[in-house]
Amino acid sequence: METLLIDEIRKRKPLIHHITNYVTVYDCAQAVISCGALPVMADAVEECAEMTGYADALVLNIGTLNSLQINSMIESGKAANKKGIPVVLDPVGAGATKFRRDMVEKLLKEFRIDVIKGNAAEIALVAGASSQMKGVESIGNYDGISESAILAAKSTGSVIVVTGKTDIVTNGIDVYEISNGHETMGKIVGTGCMSASVIASHCAVEKNYALASAQALCVYGLAGEKASGKSNTPMIFKAHFMDALYETKAEDLKSFNYISRRV
Amino acid sequence: METLLIDEIRKRKPLIHHITNYVTVYDCAQAVISCGALPVMADAVEECAEMTGYADALVLNIGTLNSLQINSMIESGKAANKKGIPVVLDPVGAGATKFRRDMVEKLLKEFRIDVIKGNAAEIALVAGASSQMKGVESIGNYDGISESAILAAKSTGSVIVVTGKTDIVTNGIDVYEISNGHETMGKIVGTGCMSASVIASHCAVEKNYALASAQALCVYGLAGEKASGKSNTPMIFKAHFMDALYETKAEDLKSFNYISRRV
Amino acid sequence: METLLIDEIRKRKPLIHHITNYVTVYDCAQAVISCGALPVMADAVEECAEMTGYADALVLNIGTLNSLQINSMIESGKAANKKGIPVVLDPVGAGATKFRRDMVEKLLKEFRIDVIKGNAAEIALVAGASSQMKGVESIGNYDGISESAILAAKSTGSVIVVTGKTDIVTNGIDVYEISNGHETMGKIVGTGCMSASVIASHCAVEKNYALASAQALCVYGLAGEKASGKSNTPMIFKAHFMDALYETKAEDLKSFNYISRRV
Repeated sequence: METLLIDEIRKRKPLIHHITNYVTVYDCAQAVISCGALPVMADAVEECAEMTGYADALVLNIGTLNSLQINSMIESGKAANKKGIPVVLDPVGAGATKFRRDMVEKLLKEFRIDVIKGNAAEIALVAGASSQMKGVESIGNYDGISESAILAAKSTGSVIVVTGKTDIVTNGIDVYEISNGHETMGKIVGTGCMSASVIASHCAVEKNYALASAQALCVYGLAGEKASGKSNTPMIFKAHFMDALYETKAEDLKSFNYISRRV
Repeated sequence: METLLIDEIRKRKPLIHHITNYVTVYDCAQAVISCGALPVMADAVEECAEMTGYADALVLNIGTLNSLQINSMIESGKAANKKGIPVVLDPVGAGATKFRRDMVEKLLKEFRIDVIKGNAAEIALVAGASSQMKGVESIGNYDGISESAILAAKSTGSVIVVTGKTDIVTNGIDVYEISNGHETMGKIVGTGCMSASVIASHCAVEKNYALASAQALCVYGLAGEKASGKSNTPMIFKAHFMDALYETKAEDLKSFNYISRRV
Repeated sequence: METLLIDEIRKRKPLIHHITNYVTVYDCAQAVISCGALPVMADAVEECAEMTGYADALVLNIGTLNSLQINSMIESGKAANKKGIPVVLDPVGAGATKFRRDMVEKLLKEFRIDVIKGNAAEIALVAGASSQMKGVESIGNYDGISESAILAAKSTGSVIVVTGKTDIVTNGIDVYEISNGHETMGKIVGTGCMSASVIASHCAVEKNYALASAQALCVYGLAGEKASGKSNTPMIFKAHFMDALYETKAEDLKSFNYISRRV
């Protein structure tokens, strides 16, 4: 992680297609712009595959999933695979209901997913381990989540990203542990969703998706740290947080707080 | 109202399930977090009843109602009744179109609604009185709204909440009149919707729903008063308003401005 | 442009009905309130035509179009024509996919559209010229867009609004070129969508839709200029921008930066 990928994003302005929930969709679009990329949100089955065909990365988020969106996700997922662009899945609340469990399983079968990003409970579910959620919040103990993530990466062939106090990124071979971030990030709606958009923006310009995801999380967590120096009440913090993302610059590299290792 | 219920919300972190409109959904989620509770937004008919089964309160908001959402509201409403958790209905624009009038009537027939919160025109409609709206805004004269609310509470068995310059909360026996609040709250989109989320968060931890709703509106109005001390332009005010909600603390009890009486 | 139309909006409080996308819908509603008008968002086919019947202007935005919304747009468009209220179309990403091209064509056939507002690529498409988009962003060279806009105004009978560094408004006879604005407006999601809401609010109180649209863009651009004096990071800028709109006052007329001419 010696160059700042966000500089490459700003240069190339990749198009990041989202099929996402209607709660945090605005923030995902703005996070993409703040990284220097271009967002497009299009979920009609009549156009989603064509739109993916013009995109440089695809984000699928099941936060307010319905049966119409599932078909669009499958169409776009296949189009992304065909074009060879990265697909990032945010399995929001994956373990919360049978519908979400079934739909995540269906998506994983229908096309290749390059990065799966979730909280510990969501990733535990993807890894086939037991998980516990309260709505879309991870509850319970996940001490072995790092090992689960490595196993899940091996079994799915996807890069696995577990967000938490320390974020974990692994492709089954390399493991990154990122400690950038601030607790106020957990007080705003959309932190998780936006992180997937930032990851996708990075994967659009760097084929090593594990490396790209790790740097995305360093950038993202560092923006949270900077914002916390300005305010720690949620909405004022949020504005500063998103703007800190926009202001990321090369010298921020030296504040990246991560370790990487081989399994 | 001698203890601050928001402290109990912060302790128990109840899960507040919303089936709501796509305009203010983010703000509703954030308002719930700022109260210390957990929001979940899930409206697919495939999962909504199961999600309600894990929740501690249910908010139904018809702001951008469609026929799919109505089925989900009925499924979730019945699940909430079965579990015994509070159901809060925000009949946005109830009198504005025949569709909304019919759908509110349908919801009231299909399951028990514990709290109905609206502006004067919306509550007049629920009470069977004449009402007048401009879009989702209450217009016209509602001098007798307090009596209408009491009658509506008796006929529906629901706690009735009328928001306005002075908010009214009644279960048909007790009446609370809350004078906390600030006029700038009326300049931002979502004030009404968020209040239902704050009420639901309070009802999730206090079975006396009239008392819980009254305290929720004191907390909410007081947050508006505090924010108005920082800014009175809509968007900057809004950020401070939502953050003031987050910063509510025990000593705020002494700034609650309400009267209660028995009918 | 000698009187400030926003003062008339504040006096009459017109109701602006939107059928719009779920990304920027909140901002459109807030922009309408900040102008002094009332927004209503209702897209269910069961009620949309009735709602339009109570409205003073209709905004149609295809940002996240689906087949259900198209039917609602047609119903509401016809209701607006019948009532004689202005219809403003924002053909977001019109050239991006076949679905969007076809749907814009369909809307233009089914009812009269009074104002079409888009970026250069979107308007080029409407004008039957070649266009190039990256998602919903205009790319490529549009040096002749002013002439295309005049031709499109003549062929469609609509006022054509092209947003860009210099905005162009024309009814085929009069041409306005507006130079108010600031580049940070291009760094936030929703700038384009909100401008259509501000235009519709102005057209609701002034039958000369070209004049109304031109003044709307002066007001809007000037709000951006004022906000840029406070911050130029996207989210903090955005709050100030929307609040500057709210604070527009008569003396701002003298900062309007436009030229008008006859073709």
